[in-house]
Amino acid sequence: MRTFINVQDIGPLDKAMAEAFEIKNDRYKYQHLGKNKTLMMIFFNNSLRTRLSTQKAAMNMGMNVIVLDVNAGAWKLETERGVIMDGDKSEHLLEAIPVMGCYCDIIGVRSFAGLTDRDYDYAETVLQQFIKYSGRPVFAMETATVHPLQAFADLITIKEWQTHPRPLPTGRGVYTSVGSTEAEGNYSPPSQGGVGGGSSKVVLTWAPHCRSLPQAVPNSFAQWMLADPDIDLVITHPEGYELDPQFVAGARVEYDQRKAFEGADFIYAKNWSNPGVTNPADYGKITCNDRSWTVDTEHMSWTNNGKFMHCLPVRRNLIVTDDVIESPNSLVIPEAANREISCSVVLKRMLEALQ
Amino acid sequence: MRTFINVQDIGPLDKAMAEAFEIKNDRYKYQHLGKNKTLMMIFFNNSLRTRLSTQKAAMNMGMNVIVLDVNAGAWKLETERGVIMDGDKSEHLLEAIPVMGCYCDIIGVRSFAGLTDRDYDYAETVLQQFIKYSGRPVFAMETATVHPLQAFADLITIKEWQTHPRPLPTGRGVYTSVGSTEAEGNYSPPSQGGVGGGSSKVVLTWAPHCRSLPQAVPNSFAQWMLADPDIDLVITHPEGYELDPQFVAGARVEYDQRKAFEGADFIYAKNWSNPGVTNPADYGKITCNDRSWTVDTEHMSWTNNGKFMHCLPVRRNLIVTDDVIESPNSLVIPEAANREISCSVVLKRMLEALQ
Amino acid sequence: MRTFINVQDIGPLDKAMAEAFEIKNDRYKYQHLGKNKTLMMIFFNNSLRTRLSTQKAAMNMGMNVIVLDVNAGAWKLETERGVIMDGDKSEHLLEAIPVMGCYCDIIGVRSFAGLTDRDYDYAETVLQQFIKYSGRPVFAMETATVHPLQAFADLITIKEWQTHPRPLPTGRGVYTSVGSTEAEGNYSPPSQGGVGGGSSKVVLTWAPHCRSLPQAVPNSFAQWMLADPDIDLVITHPEGYELDPQFVAGARVEYDQRKAFEGADFIYAKNWSNPGVTNPADYGKITCNDRSWTVDTEHMSWTNNGKFMHCLPVRRNLIVTDDVIESPNSLVIPEAANREISCSVVLKRMLEALQ
Repeated sequence: MRTFINVQDIGPLDKAMAEAFEIKNDRYKYQHLGKNKTLMMIFFNNSLRTRLSTQKAAMNMGMNVIVLDVNAGAWKLETERGVIMDGDKSEHLLEAIPVMGCYCDIIGVRSFAGLTDRDYDYAETVLQQFIKYSGRPVFAMETATVHPLQAFADLITIKEWQTHPRPLPTGRGVYTSVGSTEAEGNYSPPSQGGVGGGSSKVVLTWAPHCRSLPQAVPNSFAQWMLADPDIDLVITHPEGYELDPQFVAGARVEYDQRKAFEGADFIYAKNWSNPGVTNPADYGKITCNDRSWTVDTEHMSWTNNGKFMHCLPVRRNLIVTDDVIESPNSLVIPEAANREISCSVVLKRMLEALQ
Repeated sequence: MRTFINVQDIGPLDKAMAEAFEIKNDRYKYQHLGKNKTLMMIFFNNSLRTRLSTQKAAMNMGMNVIVLDVNAGAWKLETERGVIMDGDKSEHLLEAIPVMGCYCDIIGVRSFAGLTDRDYDYAETVLQQFIKYSGRPVFAMETATVHPLQAFADLITIKEWQTHPRPLPTGRGVYTSVGSTEAEGNYSPPSQGGVGGGSSKVVLTWAPHCRSLPQAVPNSFAQWMLADPDIDLVITHPEGYELDPQFVAGARVEYDQRKAFEGADFIYAKNWSNPGVTNPADYGKITCNDRSWTVDTEHMSWTNNGKFMHCLPVRRNLIVTDDVIESPNSLVIPEAANREISCSVVLKRMLEALQ
Repeated sequence: MRTFINVQDIGPLDKAMAEAFEIKNDRYKYQHLGKNKTLMMIFFNNSLRTRLSTQKAAMNMGMNVIVLDVNAGAWKLETERGVIMDGDKSEHLLEAIPVMGCYCDIIGVRSFAGLTDRDYDYAETVLQQFIKYSGRPVFAMETATVHPLQAFADLITIKEWQTHPRPLPTGRGVYTSVGSTEAEGNYSPPSQGGVGGGSSKVVLTWAPHCRSLPQAVPNSFAQWMLADPDIDLVITHPEGYELDPQFVAGARVEYDQRKAFEGADFIYAKNWSNPGVTNPADYGKITCNDRSWTVDTEHMSWTNNGKFMHCLPVRRNLIVTDDVIESPNSLVIPEAANREISCSVVLKRMLEALQ
């Protein structure tokens, strides 16, 4: 595997799931693959979950890790030829990126959408420059339009509860202790191959937020859900918030949130700013602030005892109420814990290709 | 061991000392314990000594290390339920802390006192949130009111010189070359168990400073000294600077610095701001700036050829004169070097509890 | 080896080259040397190439690495004795540096020239303090006046092409894929010992720049080239830009850039600010901005099919044109890749001295 951006990059999902559960049962099984291999994590934007889980996954795989924080303001690379570089850009990407590639074996890139220039964001300019010029396998650690490590972790989580429903014990104390604390070896994975248990209705629902957020998470989530034949995806959002067709073509869109929620097995809440699909001038703007979309217990009562999911960080009582996120049906912490697993599989694949 | 905050957490001191000297003789002896275990160091405040010595100790124990610098200004976690999070707080502690716990096995927390709200500081709010919600063993890397890794290192240092007096060679050149440079294997520990050599008089003395400093170091130092039956602790400070009874109950306080110093074997100098014990309104303030408290050669002449100690960083000629800190009796560099040892013991204990 | 600052520190160059090529063929051969040894990298200034390549080299050698970013503004160490430290300096170097030495085995220091006080810069004050007070072997990761890891990498690169000319394939795509990607084991080093192939004319040429830059790179480059009997060094620059005699004594200086380039095998371009040798008041200033010095294809046509070199980052069309830096004769990426090799040799030497 040379790039990890879209769901197609991971190949057949049942095989990817089987690897995920194998690694979850024995996180250090493939540690030999990473010996004397170096991961370079390049952050153009802040990160908490991605930074920590990716570092952990790389260490699980026996890799060395170099973390590079690029102050977005300082990263002024010249990209044109012929320019006399006597301004504020001190290096050309044609030197900077190959040099980074010299000192590592695999590169992870984090770079958010600017949310002002749709074409620039959706061209994934920074990510593509690394792919083209670094000479190394490259994976997205959330970029302008995709967050595949999150979507992969979400799919792992859905498979765990879809085929092997284990209600979490109730109570806030327990809410906080789930995650990767589950003793390894005792962990019971879903049926062989990780796929099975029949079809589930999964609802991706927009929810309100006070700031403009990218579409990376919903884009990748939709793409991954649509790739799984055992998942029936419904997307619900206010009119005008249509996601880009390259990610959601073929998905069912239901503008009535209640109708969408009816009979759902999994509710995946997320805010995103206007994708500018129906009106390009709206790109990156907040064109709806309807707080009736906040997921509360009444919303969840419409579902089929649905599980609640969110990629975190989450603004409580804006995206979701305290009661719902702390309920036994909330999977937010297991989702986060599975970030270590999805990234381990990606690194395993890339390391295997380097052997 | 699940937490390391107070002296009680380490159990019998003679056993802890024996482990410290065992590790000092062979720093990598317990490296197998940390294989595939990850320490997460979370800094809400800057750190030099603690950052370096803790990282070194973790690597001695064979652990992986993730360092997370949380810009104190940016770490605006919501802590209440029911709040609509549409302000500047982007995450709730009930999500943030369990997620951090997902990606590691042990957590170290650094968070200074704000020195404005005594109740908030002495409740150790940040530290307690990590203990309650992370699901992981947690140790203090200096928090609002305690610095147990320093106090443990100080006790190790006192034991080394108490039972095994080895005057340091004179001269500044030598002053700078002591520390952990001592060849391992040649290191000669104190009598078995690390305790012995009879009783020593240890004086904790306040000294002037130009900025408001927390009470974490004197609090923990007093607590650890009081726990050792072979140490006779005297605390001396200007009236009004009384330390919190939870740390110093039972200690002898002597407001006359000269009387306190007479016959002392060890002088431990430190500034702290007003603890607000006698007058809560004074909490965190500088209510005395009497420079006659600066430890100079005349002060040291009152002692029993006493050793000089300070946790560093130290402001020279305010806390202590150049002559005293550079004298053969100064133990400041060996103290700092022992930070690696105290932290190694703490990690060893926590790792053993995880096996 | 206790220090690595000047070319003399590395001993006979043929032996150093032989070690470099041995390590380039098997980067992990000496990994046992670094077991349980810790490198501390201390940055007073930003760094990309040096940070990444040094970390990679240390991991190649099996070392643990601690990276310490010292905000240059915050690093206000008192250096005098007798000062009452009640100002903005919170620590004395006589404590700070020995403490850093406590927690590591080898120290790398990065500290740029201030370019205002020539005497201070050329005294290498910060670097010398670490050498004197840390108790550890110290190497320069570019300091005020030297950049020996770069010069060593440059010499390795020249040796590779001098004795074993392998024209790079043409085309930009290939330009970006060279470097350390060359499969190990297939790498074919120069003739035994790394020295041979007869004499080469190497030209160090000044080129214009829009900002004041230090003289560290040209100083070290000249020093290393002059130490190699198979290299005929010519330095060319505008009058007034004479480099410090301690680095260039014995070098041929040619003020006519065209005459200098004639017959050259290697062109090493670099800007530096006025070294203040002929006029101390000019130190650190830009006293020439003649853009006819920019290396373009016409310049290269004067050479003996010369290779183009630059330490990077480079401002295109100011130092060198796009065409030249992207030509098959450009060695800028292989040079950067060899930074990992030169640093590996330095660490190997220092680790051997610690065994």
